[in-house]
Amino acid sequence: MIRPAELIERKRDGGTLAPAEIGELVLGHARGEIPDYQLAAFCMAVYFQGLSADETLALTDAFVESGTTLDLHGALGRKVVDKHSTGGVGDKTSIVVAPIVAACGVPFAKMSGRGLGHTGGTLDKLESIPGFRVELSKEEFVEQVRDVGLAIIGQTDDLVPADKQLYALRDVTATVDSIPLIAASIMSKKIAAGADAIVLDVKVGDGAFMRSLEDARLLAELMIELGRGAGRHVVSLLTDMDQPLGWAIGNAVEIREARALLAGEESPSDLFSLVVQTAGRLVSLSDLAIDAGEGTQRAERAIEDGSALEAYERWIAAQGGDPSLDVLPEAPIRTEVTADRAGFVDSVAALGVGRVALELGAGRRTKEDSIDHAVGLRCFAKRGDTVEPGQPLVEIHTRDEARAEQAAEQIRTLIEIGDEPQPPRPIVLETLA
Amino acid sequence: MIRPAELIERKRDGGTLAPAEIGELVLGHARGEIPDYQLAAFCMAVYFQGLSADETLALTDAFVESGTTLDLHGALGRKVVDKHSTGGVGDKTSIVVAPIVAACGVPFAKMSGRGLGHTGGTLDKLESIPGFRVELSKEEFVEQVRDVGLAIIGQTDDLVPADKQLYALRDVTATVDSIPLIAASIMSKKIAAGADAIVLDVKVGDGAFMRSLEDARLLAELMIELGRGAGRHVVSLLTDMDQPLGWAIGNAVEIREARALLAGEESPSDLFSLVVQTAGRLVSLSDLAIDAGEGTQRAERAIEDGSALEAYERWIAAQGGDPSLDVLPEAPIRTEVTADRAGFVDSVAALGVGRVALELGAGRRTKEDSIDHAVGLRCFAKRGDTVEPGQPLVEIHTRDEARAEQAAEQIRTLIEIGDEPQPPRPIVLETLA
Repeated sequence: MIRPAELIERKRDGGTLAPAEIGELVLGHARGEIPDYQLAAFCMAVYFQGLSADETLALTDAFVESGTTLDLHGALGRKVVDKHSTGGVGDKTSIVVAPIVAACGVPFAKMSGRGLGHTGGTLDKLESIPGFRVELSKEEFVEQVRDVGLAIIGQTDDLVPADKQLYALRDVTATVDSIPLIAASIMSKKIAAGADAIVLDVKVGDGAFMRSLEDARLLAELMIELGRGAGRHVVSLLTDMDQPLGWAIGNAVEIREARALLAGEESPSDLFSLVVQTAGRLVSLSDLAIDAGEGTQRAERAIEDGSALEAYERWIAAQGGDPSLDVLPEAPIRTEVTADRAGFVDSVAALGVGRVALELGAGRRTKEDSIDHAVGLRCFAKRGDTVEPGQPLVEIHTRDEARAEQAAEQIRTLIEIGDEPQPPRPIVLETLA
Repeated sequence: MIRPAELIERKRDGGTLAPAEIGELVLGHARGEIPDYQLAAFCMAVYFQGLSADETLALTDAFVESGTTLDLHGALGRKVVDKHSTGGVGDKTSIVVAPIVAACGVPFAKMSGRGLGHTGGTLDKLESIPGFRVELSKEEFVEQVRDVGLAIIGQTDDLVPADKQLYALRDVTATVDSIPLIAASIMSKKIAAGADAIVLDVKVGDGAFMRSLEDARLLAELMIELGRGAGRHVVSLLTDMDQPLGWAIGNAVEIREARALLAGEESPSDLFSLVVQTAGRLVSLSDLAIDAGEGTQRAERAIEDGSALEAYERWIAAQGGDPSLDVLPEAPIRTEVTADRAGFVDSVAALGVGRVALELGAGRRTKEDSIDHAVGLRCFAKRGDTVEPGQPLVEIHTRDEARAEQAAEQIRTLIEIGDEPQPPRPIVLETLA
């Protein structure tokens, strides 16, 4: 039997734990045999001393081993793909990418999470669609992927329970912000959920968990290695989160934007670019065996020919939702924030904008908060845009005037307009495979 | 209401907590309102980021405030002194110092602890005296100090409960080794126990908690400051623990050595020097208002004139013990380890010797272990001593031959004999006030 205090001390002093020791610690905690306080101290020691690649792999394995796992490949007889984003502001990518990939003939299966703080969650956004069910059983999930071609559901309770317990503990002990702990938590969920290939969208910037490209790269490389260790093909896109993604930030407003893109309507170019690149990568990792460039072209064609929108409607209906636009909740009040001078947009502070949306009621401050699916923002201003005085920068969707006014005031401090155009920056900063 | 996770995060990131925040965290924990896991993460963050002087003072205050405190000065109408050692091998100093100080007319009142690991505890040593009671009530404690002039008892349950709870948590989360946490824990106990003046014996070296003089100095300075913050006069002696203190290591063997010194019999010079210097300092901090040099002379006189031994006998009897030598338990087997060559003693590894005594049964590995008061060692070899082949270096006191043989083998690896004499090193390395 291991002595947890000795393992904590060894990690504290910069030493290394054997894979079996990591496993006993985490699985012992999951079984209730090792108390929370020892894991809390261990996680804080890891925060300062890190984990080696082997230790992180052992941690990931332990998380996976703690629960049941899906074998989607076995169930479908072909490669199934999945994607994950580390969370940002206005990130509705999965909701657009999934039907595109399915329309290209590649099965897409994702278990997703809810939003917390300034970042939104895919499940919350999907739940703004009346009737949409996120809680499918594993059997329903697999069936739907086979029959409809795609599914996005909430993580089932029997997957990675050890990660779930440890994450809840990290959340209240200031030990979330550790790259190896984040990597193991994400990858264990992806591995247990059973896809063969995964595209990881690692957001970088002011509105993201990873503030620097360097940290994002470390996290991405580590997750690729963890995926390889479990026999999964992982590609990471490092993508810009210094400004919100697309225009819409909220829940129903993001579903509208997602649907509009799928319908081939005018859409924000950063979102469009990220969506087709992500979908292209996913398609390239499937049994189709094409390259990413060809994958991106197929993704664009699926939007143009309407097959992506059809897949979207099929999918939403399969999970009990009404895919039409007019059922989505709308906030009664819309307030515009306009430019007070001519110039070029220097920056749109993603974190700040995310917080404004949170305060409007689009997100949750604590896990217990409820969400108002109707409220949110549409932020038309993008870094590098030319603006004229009076030009609309942001549209605020709220239920009361006071909140709208408060939000408008905050927004004005979050968009900087300068005299020189910013050099263009692509949405995908780097691709790691 | 504070949010503990935010305080942990701030400390993790190298920030500072307000005194009230430290207080709420620690007292909230003591009241059971803040869970162990948050304090465990906090202590690990403190391990890496430290505490400021103000934060450490606030922590000490919170510990003191969590329980009852004694006002010895108020009860006796004069200054009462106390001493504390950070723990070493063969450290019976308190048992010798207390009666000397009392014989000099200065009331001595100490609450003490038990031993763990390679370091012995004063209470365990005293309990090798048949009948000796360490569990007096606060009232009995105060009365005995007033009527008999001295008392050493176990810490009463109502003193610093917050420290007690946090220490138990630190013990199992590898967060004991933090200088500010150690300083606050020690000083809160000393402050609550009510003495006006305290001499802190901070051990330095292989057999001590503080391995380097630098760390010992930091700890000592911090404790002096914490004492000053609570209106107590504190002097710190940094003393050598690279070799065991005195000859005897165990329980009854240490009581014998303590009594012999008080009786003016031939005694190890390091112990004698430390005892009279500590007693001298304590006497100098009392109402007698003499300097430390004069205090040391009075301490030596108290030994010579028999008044110290009388105080010892009065004290032991007052706490229910039999002060005579022949009632002390003795181990049936004595094995000698002798020098196998001529030369000079280079080193006697204190930590190793302490561990041998522990394995003989003189100490406890875990808090639940029981102690054999009769077993132990007498280590005559001292750094710098000249030795001849066959000269006794160590005498092992055990209950069975196999253990004796094993201990003898270990001892042989712990004493190094070289060809050159070591330069002399005083027992008191530095004095800080």
